[in-house]
Amino acid sequence: MIVDAKQLLQQYGSPLYLYDEECLENKCKRIKQFETSLKERLSGNIAVSMHYAIKANSNLSILEIVKKNGLKVDCMSPLELEINKKCGFKKNEILYVCNNISAEEMKAVIDEGILICLDSISQVETCGKVCPGTKIMVRINPGTVGVGHSQKVVTSGKATKFGISEDNLQQLFDTATKYDLHIIGTHQHLGSLFLNDKISDYIAGVKAGLDIVKKYFKDVEIVDLGGGFGVPYEPREEELTLSYVQNELIPVLNGFIEEYPSVKEFKFEPGRYIPCEAGDLLGTVMATKYENGIWWIGTDIGMGTIPRPSMYDSYHEIIVPDSEGELVTANFCGNVCESGDILGKERKVKLPKVGDLVVVHNAGAYGYSMASNYTGRLRPAEVMVMHGDGNCQLIRRRETIDDLIGLMM
Amino acid sequence: MIVDAKQLLQQYGSPLYLYDEECLENKCKRIKQFETSLKERLSGNIAVSMHYAIKANSNLSILEIVKKNGLKVDCMSPLELEINKKCGFKKNEILYVCNNISAEEMKAVIDEGILICLDSISQVETCGKVCPGTKIMVRINPGTVGVGHSQKVVTSGKATKFGISEDNLQQLFDTATKYDLHIIGTHQHLGSLFLNDKISDYIAGVKAGLDIVKKYFKDVEIVDLGGGFGVPYEPREEELTLSYVQNELIPVLNGFIEEYPSVKEFKFEPGRYIPCEAGDLLGTVMATKYENGIWWIGTDIGMGTIPRPSMYDSYHEIIVPDSEGELVTANFCGNVCESGDILGKERKVKLPKVGDLVVVHNAGAYGYSMASNYTGRLRPAEVMVMHGDGNCQLIRRRETIDDLIGLMM
Repeated sequence: MIVDAKQLLQQYGSPLYLYDEECLENKCKRIKQFETSLKERLSGNIAVSMHYAIKANSNLSILEIVKKNGLKVDCMSPLELEINKKCGFKKNEILYVCNNISAEEMKAVIDEGILICLDSISQVETCGKVCPGTKIMVRINPGTVGVGHSQKVVTSGKATKFGISEDNLQQLFDTATKYDLHIIGTHQHLGSLFLNDKISDYIAGVKAGLDIVKKYFKDVEIVDLGGGFGVPYEPREEELTLSYVQNELIPVLNGFIEEYPSVKEFKFEPGRYIPCEAGDLLGTVMATKYENGIWWIGTDIGMGTIPRPSMYDSYHEIIVPDSEGELVTANFCGNVCESGDILGKERKVKLPKVGDLVVVHNAGAYGYSMASNYTGRLRPAEVMVMHGDGNCQLIRRRETIDDLIGLMM
Repeated sequence: MIVDAKQLLQQYGSPLYLYDEECLENKCKRIKQFETSLKERLSGNIAVSMHYAIKANSNLSILEIVKKNGLKVDCMSPLELEINKKCGFKKNEILYVCNNISAEEMKAVIDEGILICLDSISQVETCGKVCPGTKIMVRINPGTVGVGHSQKVVTSGKATKFGISEDNLQQLFDTATKYDLHIIGTHQHLGSLFLNDKISDYIAGVKAGLDIVKKYFKDVEIVDLGGGFGVPYEPREEELTLSYVQNELIPVLNGFIEEYPSVKEFKFEPGRYIPCEAGDLLGTVMATKYENGIWWIGTDIGMGTIPRPSMYDSYHEIIVPDSEGELVTANFCGNVCESGDILGKERKVKLPKVGDLVVVHNAGAYGYSMASNYTGRLRPAEVMVMHGDGNCQLIRRRETIDDLIGLMM
């Protein structure tokens, strides 16, 4: 996208989340293409649904693009559900994949006619008490090692909080029977962010999950294989090739269809894959200094604005596009009084000047959605560069001091 | 404090931050007492100021208690400054200890007549350009190892982003001279959360800082020794004894006063120490399960509501006061779809039932202030139990879905 970034910072304030509609559309189209061709290559008349996991980025304008491209959504809280409804998704296009929710929240979701996926026998029991006779999905833990960019996001494997393991399935079925609940689908999710080098781990996890479905579950219609489709964050990383994933999936899924004739639909839940690369976080260099053998580039992009680097030590590409300075090794940091407020470590960059633009790539997923007001910093505006005319549209305004003080009595 | 916690959750929603006014007052009084007795024990007529670092918790009602007890404040963003002003702190009671801020922000603070502490020569240069002739403080990095509960909060030592090290002081003075800036104070902060077993490290850091002041700085009036006063989070930890800290400080500070006659004031910036233990985070058990050899207690207290456990692997005491179940070893987790969404690991507790109350202690500092809306969860209400009558007062309302959707276009 070609925009006058510094002018945007002037207009909307620094820092600023900036999205590229064209990139978003392309990623949606690839996911849609994955859906279409997977459907064609599966034996029989099996549906395939791609549910965008909106926790990656739940901005309404982003969801509108997701919708326009024929994708569905998943969500996990009343606010996320409200955003999906506001965007016009129909109830059969929304999946509620939740975790440790209240009976009231569960009942409200089910009463709206939205399919819910439950994560524990305890939650199934809650569901049975408030909504007996409901059709539900359940999350299993295939017990395989899982995949992920940080231990904190590996969501499968024995040591995680998610799903029901093989040992407890009989108790699950007994509980479902007790309340006349119909388990019409299973769900599994191995973790976040796998790339080509981990496709075989992903496939092993899929197989392990399908084996459990075949062995224990009777007449399930929906098998949800979760998300995890990664994007490259580091220059050395290769893009995930969806056709490779599909080539590996086809024999596994077709084998399953043959042995398990009740299956009617496979669901997937790509999250990060869709908005991540479409989003940049723009900010401003506020100070530079050379201390104790390393350069520090101080910016207004603190750990509250984009928590991933300080939270997971995640790598984000950072560029200073206008800099003409000498090539140095520098740490980028934010404006928070905490040593962990590091945006990037030991980067080779042309030393910028105070006031220069700084751009953090791959900020479209788990950027704004995880942001906080730590140390009193306002969450930034979000702007979308529109495909075609290149116009910039404000898609979420910057918070104000009054927004935040207004909550206090 | 004795309150009907479950009734409060009914009234204000679960989860809920709950503060005890009496505990807050007591912690303020101890800090005030530290100030008073330190002043008495220092040679000559030296002022001592305790500036509460409001980033720990910037709720207006908490600041009012801080104010009533004669303490001052520090802040680091326009929002925090606005809260301090709204609370009635006078400009000479407010200190702006910032990091990588813009020229506009800096000028606005200085124009209000508020003393600013700058963190790098680069920021001093910015200040000189927009406000030549100003009186400023500067942050030094004494280069000692620092103290802290996590590497992410150790704010001194060669590898941190903070302060100006010895090697660069001449350049600092040259820059100050160039713009006629008057360095009237120095600042150092060694890190967060030291207890009795680390007092000697703290004192060593203080000495290192004072040695730098003596050696390089001419006629500084204010020496700010930062914060770091810890509180026990784990049952095995002993409370910090402020009188021990003081006993160790006295000879060091009096020695300094003797050799450095221009000093007129010592400042300290306790943050966590004041509100931490006064705050509990109340929530509800939503599910329990036994999977792969361990119990999981699923709650509605996710990593967005209190990020410290997932961010730093911080320990918070967690109790289930009403539970009469069997004694088990359990992990407590929240309602976010992320494996790192863990509130506490391997705790011995009486197994609670769904719907039971769960209480996270020491949630008064860096709790709400770091909270986010990750996965669409609303930030909770805050309630204060008043000293004397035990009445419960809402001090910040729960966010609403409309608050958050309203930001989007």
